[in-house]
Amino acid sequence: MPDKLKSPVKAALVVIGDEILSGRTKDANAATLALWLNEQGVRLDEVRVVPDVTERIIAAVNECRSRFRYVFTTGGIGPTHDDITADAIAKAFDVPLIDHPEAVRLLKAHYPKGEFTEARRRMARIPEGGTLIDNPISVAPGFQLDNVYVLAGVPLIMKAMLESLRHSLDGGAPMRSASLTVPMPESALAGDLGRIADAAKDVQIGSYPYYREGRVGLHVVVRSTDEKRIEQVIEDIKSVVSRFGVTPVDDPREG
Amino acid sequence: MPDKLKSPVKAALVVIGDEILSGRTKDANAATLALWLNEQGVRLDEVRVVPDVTERIIAAVNECRSRFRYVFTTGGIGPTHDDITADAIAKAFDVPLIDHPEAVRLLKAHYPKGEFTEARRRMARIPEGGTLIDNPISVAPGFQLDNVYVLAGVPLIMKAMLESLRHSLDGGAPMRSASLTVPMPESALAGDLGRIADAAKDVQIGSYPYYREGRVGLHVVVRSTDEKRIEQVIEDIKSVVSRFGVTPVDDPREG
Repeated sequence: MPDKLKSPVKAALVVIGDEILSGRTKDANAATLALWLNEQGVRLDEVRVVPDVTERIIAAVNECRSRFRYVFTTGGIGPTHDDITADAIAKAFDVPLIDHPEAVRLLKAHYPKGEFTEARRRMARIPEGGTLIDNPISVAPGFQLDNVYVLAGVPLIMKAMLESLRHSLDGGAPMRSASLTVPMPESALAGDLGRIADAAKDVQIGSYPYYREGRVGLHVVVRSTDEKRIEQVIEDIKSVVSRFGVTPVDDPREG
Repeated sequence: MPDKLKSPVKAALVVIGDEILSGRTKDANAATLALWLNEQGVRLDEVRVVPDVTERIIAAVNECRSRFRYVFTTGGIGPTHDDITADAIAKAFDVPLIDHPEAVRLLKAHYPKGEFTEARRRMARIPEGGTLIDNPISVAPGFQLDNVYVLAGVPLIMKAMLESLRHSLDGGAPMRSASLTVPMPESALAGDLGRIADAAKDVQIGSYPYYREGRVGLHVVVRSTDEKRIEQVIEDIKSVVSRFGVTPVDDPREG
């Protein structure tokens, strides 16, 4: 087994998110990032949501960048007073925040003459040493500094920024998965599922119960970088389930 | 101003969530908890999503329980092999995991005679000293140990468990908020909004741009425990916006 399969490349996401912590908005970026990273052979291994407070952003980013190969942040890079991410990242790295010449040029070209205001110029402030991340939607760029990637919080822009980073990460084998819907109580299958999991320690088997319209059931998700092992374990689970007189249903494959 | 308004009571959420980190599922529990906590006068101040790995759960819970007044966890308390939260919490507190007599009684009564299997008995394992949290949906209880509240991951059950905790937390004044939809580019309003924010440091003003069907705009959210201050600041913002010939729209109030 190649080394890179043994120790997957891991990433963390720091969500700068007063609006998530207040309950006003449900985060959608973590799932987007998780799926995209997996295509690059990188596992999302931790998410932290912190308030829009400089010290909290610095602490989360500094801890994560020392522990994970890649760190992504979302949110707080717009033109308003509450957009403090670039300042916080500069402080986290102890480098000055500068007007990035290319960012200034892009933004100046985007706005009509005379409308490149002080507030808009804020969006060209990048920590020294940072590389711009293209924003095809609304011009104002994200940036990369060392292993930290600073993205917009608006899901549409965040996605577009990720696309511009495609193939630039140093990943391993992507994780594959398959899942079954099993219309029986999770606790009735738990013993058998545990035995299958014990015998298949090279794959991850997750069990997620659901309650829908008064019916109970579970999704069993099998994850591995090895497609063949997934199929074998799925077959084992199907054969156990069928002994209960229950028919498991293959869920649509995600990738 | 009473002390409790000056330093709000804060909570953290630890999501035990391989299924969130894989991108398979979008977390819905953070928003539910945030809104519910706010009704109790408690602010959700950090969220961490960690994998279903004992050491990671222990580390996150131990750090959060020393830093926050309350810690909630979601996920990993079912009957299957991947449900390791109770074990991890017991290790985090360095106490044994015991068969809780009341949990055993509840579960035994719930299942037909002879069907209270070994796997189902797992759900009665609670760290010593823990108090049960009622689960009116599927019986298997959550538990509270010191300032840590261990809840189910299934959103329906998680919500029901929160209801059974209503009025049991020691909170301050709930945060109120109002928001406006402003159909103009965020960067055009940024300067004025910054000046209003500078003059109103006792409230939080958040600016969240949107892109919908090719139109840009922003939501301005004003948060405070003081309803009157919210109204004053909202009026200030409306008057600035109207100078651009734009009509802001009051968003529906959440609470």
